[in-house]
Amino acid sequence: MALPVTVESVASAARDVAIASLHQLLGDRVSTAAPVREQHGKDASYHPCVPPDAVAFAQSTAEVSEIVKICARHKVPIIPFGSGTGLEGHVVALRGGVCIDISRMNQILQVSTGDLDAKVQAGVTHEQLNEHLRDTGLFFSVDPGANATLGGMAATRASGTTAVRYGTMRENVLSLTVVLPDGRVIRTARRARKSSAGYDLTRLFVGSEGTLGVITEVTVRLCGVPPAISAATCSFPTIEAAVNTVIETIQTGIPVVRIELADAATMNSIIRYSKLDLPVAPMLWMEFHGTENAVAEQARMVQRIAADHGGANFSWTTRPEDRQRLWRARHDAYYAKKAAYLGTQLWATDVCVPISRLAECITETQKDIAASFVPATIVGHAGDGNFHVGFMINPNEPKEMAEAERLHERLVHRALSFDGTCTGEHGIGCGKIDFLIAEHGEAVSVMQAIKKAIDPDNIMNPGKILRV
Amino acid sequence: MALPVTVESVASAARDVAIASLHQLLGDRVSTAAPVREQHGKDASYHPCVPPDAVAFAQSTAEVSEIVKICARHKVPIIPFGSGTGLEGHVVALRGGVCIDISRMNQILQVSTGDLDAKVQAGVTHEQLNEHLRDTGLFFSVDPGANATLGGMAATRASGTTAVRYGTMRENVLSLTVVLPDGRVIRTARRARKSSAGYDLTRLFVGSEGTLGVITEVTVRLCGVPPAISAATCSFPTIEAAVNTVIETIQTGIPVVRIELADAATMNSIIRYSKLDLPVAPMLWMEFHGTENAVAEQARMVQRIAADHGGANFSWTTRPEDRQRLWRARHDAYYAKKAAYLGTQLWATDVCVPISRLAECITETQKDIAASFVPATIVGHAGDGNFHVGFMINPNEPKEMAEAERLHERLVHRALSFDGTCTGEHGIGCGKIDFLIAEHGEAVSVMQAIKKAIDPDNIMNPGKILRV
Repeated sequence: MALPVTVESVASAARDVAIASLHQLLGDRVSTAAPVREQHGKDASYHPCVPPDAVAFAQSTAEVSEIVKICARHKVPIIPFGSGTGLEGHVVALRGGVCIDISRMNQILQVSTGDLDAKVQAGVTHEQLNEHLRDTGLFFSVDPGANATLGGMAATRASGTTAVRYGTMRENVLSLTVVLPDGRVIRTARRARKSSAGYDLTRLFVGSEGTLGVITEVTVRLCGVPPAISAATCSFPTIEAAVNTVIETIQTGIPVVRIELADAATMNSIIRYSKLDLPVAPMLWMEFHGTENAVAEQARMVQRIAADHGGANFSWTTRPEDRQRLWRARHDAYYAKKAAYLGTQLWATDVCVPISRLAECITETQKDIAASFVPATIVGHAGDGNFHVGFMINPNEPKEMAEAERLHERLVHRALSFDGTCTGEHGIGCGKIDFLIAEHGEAVSVMQAIKKAIDPDNIMNPGKILRV
Repeated sequence: MALPVTVESVASAARDVAIASLHQLLGDRVSTAAPVREQHGKDASYHPCVPPDAVAFAQSTAEVSEIVKICARHKVPIIPFGSGTGLEGHVVALRGGVCIDISRMNQILQVSTGDLDAKVQAGVTHEQLNEHLRDTGLFFSVDPGANATLGGMAATRASGTTAVRYGTMRENVLSLTVVLPDGRVIRTARRARKSSAGYDLTRLFVGSEGTLGVITEVTVRLCGVPPAISAATCSFPTIEAAVNTVIETIQTGIPVVRIELADAATMNSIIRYSKLDLPVAPMLWMEFHGTENAVAEQARMVQRIAADHGGANFSWTTRPEDRQRLWRARHDAYYAKKAAYLGTQLWATDVCVPISRLAECITETQKDIAASFVPATIVGHAGDGNFHVGFMINPNEPKEMAEAERLHERLVHRALSFDGTCTGEHGIGCGKIDFLIAEHGEAVSVMQAIKKAIDPDNIMNPGKILRV
């Protein structure tokens, strides 16, 4: 009598065949070892680990194409993996499959100083690229905090502190090389600064979170290093005063490069962690780029605005070592929080609203936090109207999780009610699929139609962004 | 005996039923009069007129939705129409159908000075919007020359003179309201400055040339009017010298707002038309925005660069009336050419290349023009690497058309060989479909898959951008 053949066992057999083919192709650059799989089944977020069946370490676009062809033939899911620094479970292998780790694709292919652009393999990180550019007078502006790969940053439409002046990945990617779900390779655009030639596939793949293909090469814009850089910090009596300073700065058109906000709770942990002599009060960090005169003038203008809102302890400097000192506290925020709330995990979410609604959105959120038993902090790329709430939770405590979920839901719906978005820079992953529907409504069906047209078998990072 | 029923007669009957339904919906805002149809079957280009079967003048998104539903039910083609200033035959009714004229949708719905954005109906022109903004201290930056509607500008991913500093429609559209090919209405994004929430539908519809839906509302970014504006002009011994001045200006990072180039042939017609006392030599026009000091400094820097390249007669001014005088010659270029080459028609095409290849691309193009019997001129938004060639032809002379086509093909392939694009700002329409394939290769199949997924019956502006 034959054994019963289930869908699951067919899928499992197909997976085994696919992995065997990958071994033939890549040798020991395919791993099914538990520690490797576990390391690739989790990102930097609270989302629980779900390991893939195998991890393939690719070295070239051609190799990614071969890997994808093998997986496509057997309808095995594919999950692209950069540095694993995502925050919405983008790499969690919800349906198993093969994780394609592109971190070894770390060649800088071309830097054109004449055209202010660079073409890199998708595994190059932004720190690596900037290190490479050090003596060229150019830099790559997008800085999401973590040392993410450019492929991952493109896939999640990353931004970070400098977006208010230099834009996000949306504005800074000129072109992508993408391996489609059937293994074909396309380039989404030429290197011209602008084009009206057909649908904007570059912008379609930027932010597609691995659901439409694997990004293997990224061409990005570079910026000239300004002649002068100045940094400033300032404390405020209330978070509203700090936010209103941001709003007025943006509305006045001061070309601030970074303008970062932290609430008193964040400052409390930073001060204890970094042993700083600062008031436990909301704070702003700012950076200005330009000529010596311009950055001085900009700092003066912001100081006046801050003073109108009760800002105190305004410090500013153009000296590199002093700038670093002023900014260190901001960079320490993540570790400071981890230290302050030992034994908990940080659930970092983000929303983004029109700047005129930022003060209202943040103060209402603070009221929610104050009334809750779950500790939470606020930091933000305030110049964009973008801010993060970090819930400090034990994921194994259902009561804490339920409360964080309640606050989170209120936060997102508040942002949406202000005509904002459920995520300014973290992406949808598997954590915000329902919020995507709340935000976009009928437009989600257009996204689903596109997904189905490009990836009919739903093998590309299934379960992320959309339900298919 | 029954009459033979052909596909054509079924289509024709369906069209008649659809038009009858439109009459019921819109009354006398549907026209089948020959002059109205002819006016809507042609744009500002050399493409021959092909009139639609009817023209519907819509007044609201809801009305566009109803019109589209009627057309969809009968599989009648739909062609959205703004101001008819396109240059690649975007509105030519290749398969007949209903033209939806959105020019009466000209309400400015909301201006948010706090968020620096405005929401308008798609029939609002950029001049109308800027007139409306006059006392707000804000302006809308994109200026394609013609007084196009914002819907049309979004649909063709328009740019123009200011794109080098403020970006194209790609960067300046925050959100769109779109009527899908089945009549459903979506909004592509919220009003937040950035978002990582799902596929970038805004950028997908920007540049889709009416092939995926009808854009009915546009939310755009606004910019603050700078405290000072200066204009400058300069003549050069050769076009190469002028272009090298542009390249060095851009590579130095001088934040020029406009930097426009004209060749000697263009100058010759301008000088005769506007009776100006200028040398018949390549010329640059520039504009700078900033503080009084900044614009003076920028003009000085560019003057030094120009002098290094043999630039002469450098004039610059900050006075509004003098700025207008300096720029008038540039604005007159189109009419000057029409006057200089009476009896011919202007076939204006455009390509865009990485800035480092611009001098080579333009000088090689000039050699082609010099060796040809078809007169042609070059003007360009040189700071973007974007330039226009205007062939002066009689479309009824097959020899002239064939020669212009030969030059055109060489021009586009030259731009592509420099990693440029077949169109920087005019779009594909029905004139550049083969060049799109030459530029994008396999990626065109992704565009086709998207088109088929969103518009399965191919009723939205068929025959434009893609062959389906």
